[in-house]
Amino acid sequence: MAQKTAPDSTRRSERSRRAIYDAALALVGEVGYGKMTIEAIAARAGVGKQTIYRWWPSKSAVLLDAFLDLAEQANAQLSEEAGLAEPATDIPDTGDLEADLKYVLRATVDEMTDPKFDAPARALAAEGVVNQELGTEFVERLLEPQLQHYVKRLRRSQDRGEIAAHVDPRIALELWTGPLAQRWMQRTGPLTHAYADTLVEYALYGIAPR
Amino acid sequence: MAQKTAPDSTRRSERSRRAIYDAALALVGEVGYGKMTIEAIAARAGVGKQTIYRWWPSKSAVLLDAFLDLAEQANAQLSEEAGLAEPATDIPDTGDLEADLKYVLRATVDEMTDPKFDAPARALAAEGVVNQELGTEFVERLLEPQLQHYVKRLRRSQDRGEIAAHVDPRIALELWTGPLAQRWMQRTGPLTHAYADTLVEYALYGIAPR
Repeated sequence: MAQKTAPDSTRRSERSRRAIYDAALALVGEVGYGKMTIEAIAARAGVGKQTIYRWWPSKSAVLLDAFLDLAEQANAQLSEEAGLAEPATDIPDTGDLEADLKYVLRATVDEMTDPKFDAPARALAAEGVVNQELGTEFVERLLEPQLQHYVKRLRRSQDRGEIAAHVDPRIALELWTGPLAQRWMQRTGPLTHAYADTLVEYALYGIAPR
Repeated sequence: MAQKTAPDSTRRSERSRRAIYDAALALVGEVGYGKMTIEAIAARAGVGKQTIYRWWPSKSAVLLDAFLDLAEQANAQLSEEAGLAEPATDIPDTGDLEADLKYVLRATVDEMTDPKFDAPARALAAEGVVNQELGTEFVERLLEPQLQHYVKRLRRSQDRGEIAAHVDPRIALELWTGPLAQRWMQRTGPLTHAYADTLVEYALYGIAPR
């Protein structure tokens, strides 16, 4: 009863892949990382367990791919809203660093406060705090590539003299990503566009009088 | 066989309390918040379950008190090392804001990288990410009172014109506490004294050229 590969097998695979991502994201938000199983993902996605094991070696691998896909979707949507023909991969460079950073940080706030993102991202972040292996994989595959977009953008501004020569862009970006991450993870205050704007202004110009 | 209150009952209570704190901190680091029980804390501390219930209504209440006690101990030790007669409750004000902030942030880095603190604090922080009630209680009782020391110190500097008048101290402090929290929780980079110093410098003077 072995099936021959049909012309629409790619489309069917794509449909299964998406169902698996959706199931993994929903499940981790509902039961947490520790209690999530490949079996439960398969059952919820309506696929066989072997389908998942054929593509991914572990539940952490499925989940990380699901988050990468979610981030790509969010980026594609944002690019479409901005009227771009292709999804943007870089941080905009309009020549106005303050405006460009505010634009990206406001979008980050929108993503962090999106319920679709919140529950699964919290479950993954919580596990990363106590599970060093997963936390490191999450940072290397998901977070650091995003942070490197800031490094690239800041270096361009630095080359034009808009950022002081002694500043390390990889540390500087943490002046806004750190506070946003802390407010999101520890709920130390509201995540708003006004807050994002303030962080950008304080980071660029400092809190000591100029 | 009811015991009369003996002269040393206070000392005995104090010994039990400390044993309970130690047990709670050790357990949460080992098994995580979800699997920690009052029964296990009692067994490890060598006290009856009722002793714990007489003093605390829940395991979260025990744990939060244990962390408050740990923070007080760390502060007392730091104050002793600094040669103070009384434990310091405020951030030092030597008249040099940059030096005072670096002093406190370096001590924070030392605490964050102390193994005694790391495992229990990670377990509590991870639970707070997904458990809004516990997270909020943790922030209100433990984190926010510490952050308010920065607010107080920054306001004194602001009154002397060392911080720009338009700056909100409650947001400004997140320029260093946010990045430290993110590096600690998400392991996005090393937690060192040099890193703490850099955060203070960037936050005070900004990354745009002066």
